[in-house]
Amino acid sequence: MTGARPTEIRVSEIFGPTIQGEGVLIGLPTVFVRTGGCDYRCSWCDSLHAVESRFRDEWRAMSTEEVWREVTRLSGGKPLMVSLSGGNPAIQPFGELIGCGHGQGYRFALETQGSVARDWFADLDVLVLSPKPPSSGMETDWEAFDACLRASEGKPQTVLKIVVFDEADYDYARSAAARYRHLPVYLQPGNHTPPPADAHDAPIDIDRIMARMRWLVDRVAEDRWFEARVLPQLHVLIWGNRRGV
Amino acid sequence: MTGARPTEIRVSEIFGPTIQGEGVLIGLPTVFVRTGGCDYRCSWCDSLHAVESRFRDEWRAMSTEEVWREVTRLSGGKPLMVSLSGGNPAIQPFGELIGCGHGQGYRFALETQGSVARDWFADLDVLVLSPKPPSSGMETDWEAFDACLRASEGKPQTVLKIVVFDEADYDYARSAAARYRHLPVYLQPGNHTPPPADAHDAPIDIDRIMARMRWLVDRVAEDRWFEARVLPQLHVLIWGNRRGV
Repeated sequence: MTGARPTEIRVSEIFGPTIQGEGVLIGLPTVFVRTGGCDYRCSWCDSLHAVESRFRDEWRAMSTEEVWREVTRLSGGKPLMVSLSGGNPAIQPFGELIGCGHGQGYRFALETQGSVARDWFADLDVLVLSPKPPSSGMETDWEAFDACLRASEGKPQTVLKIVVFDEADYDYARSAAARYRHLPVYLQPGNHTPPPADAHDAPIDIDRIMARMRWLVDRVAEDRWFEARVLPQLHVLIWGNRRGV
Repeated sequence: MTGARPTEIRVSEIFGPTIQGEGVLIGLPTVFVRTGGCDYRCSWCDSLHAVESRFRDEWRAMSTEEVWREVTRLSGGKPLMVSLSGGNPAIQPFGELIGCGHGQGYRFALETQGSVARDWFADLDVLVLSPKPPSSGMETDWEAFDACLRASEGKPQTVLKIVVFDEADYDYARSAAARYRHLPVYLQPGNHTPPPADAHDAPIDIDRIMARMRWLVDRVAEDRWFEARVLPQLHVLIWGNRRGV
């Protein structure tokens, strides 16, 4: 990829419509705009092809117009939910695309770890803040996270989504939920068999993912944490690690 | 079971907390009150133990107080979502239980085919209307269905959930959605290997259920039916046909 100009969006892939596999919009037909580049390096990242800079030659610097043309082509011009994901899509200039799409009845959801706040967060329809638990190897900057909440000004529907691998992650999720009592919480069992960065498909250990799912349901029930929703990555159950679905 | 008095609820089982496996509340910790008795006999019913009258000796006529005591025992007295299911729970007297639970901060969701309207529908928090498609062998009485909508008076969050096995079911779902454009729609691939009525567990053909899920996602995408959500029965993926989860 040649260097992107400030108004260009670094795109790893645009695909869909397929259903959203995770969290609050689970099951909803969606076109995904996956951006390239991330300020995090989570140990279990399942989208390394959109994170590691050795893949930057596969990313494309696209203008808002080019991205918009591809989204409308894939959706046949019919409005739907567009998911901005990554990498960390918050480091891309999405304000214009959102304005353009809203004019045509499209809606926009952004999923980010909450490390970078942008003023256009307030224009989103759905903001999924997904702080990373200890197993990721990352540390959460809660001041940056709070800035994301302030930037959204309570305008989009805002939710927490936290990946859980183990007890330490679970405790982290409890603390995060306690800190933001007003936000709905979605817990997601982690996938310990993410695809290698250069694979378009890869075997997956569904049995242990589902065992983790059962553990998480039990954990939430025994704690009487009745406000939390527990949801697996549906696309992983349906398609495994296959890319582009 | 001895004959239930008019204020008694015929209960097949009360269990939980576990997560809701279907539809709009998917993933949410829930206590289930499954009632005995149904005015339908769907060919692929997955809860025959709560439908066929040969099981009525296993059902219990319980007072509102007895049901309430069991719900609060299971939830440790902490408010959560209570799902009223069946059988057809609409043929039971649930008005008092809902009033009682609301006083303690509990919420109530009812799932019914929409064949019997009750005035207490207006007191629900969530009403899931699940009209049965052609593959069920049942015929929908749309006047009765409309009466259910009138009874709820738009007060609870009301959604359509439709099981889809094949093209005829899919067409039925499209028509139902077109008839009730204001209602969110959830499509659910059918389970062609429901448990036999007297089994507490039974083998299940996950591969074909997931193949049907993929077909349904493709179908919705190619039709650009972007408002419909497509969700599998999560509890079936997690626990198979096991009862009580």
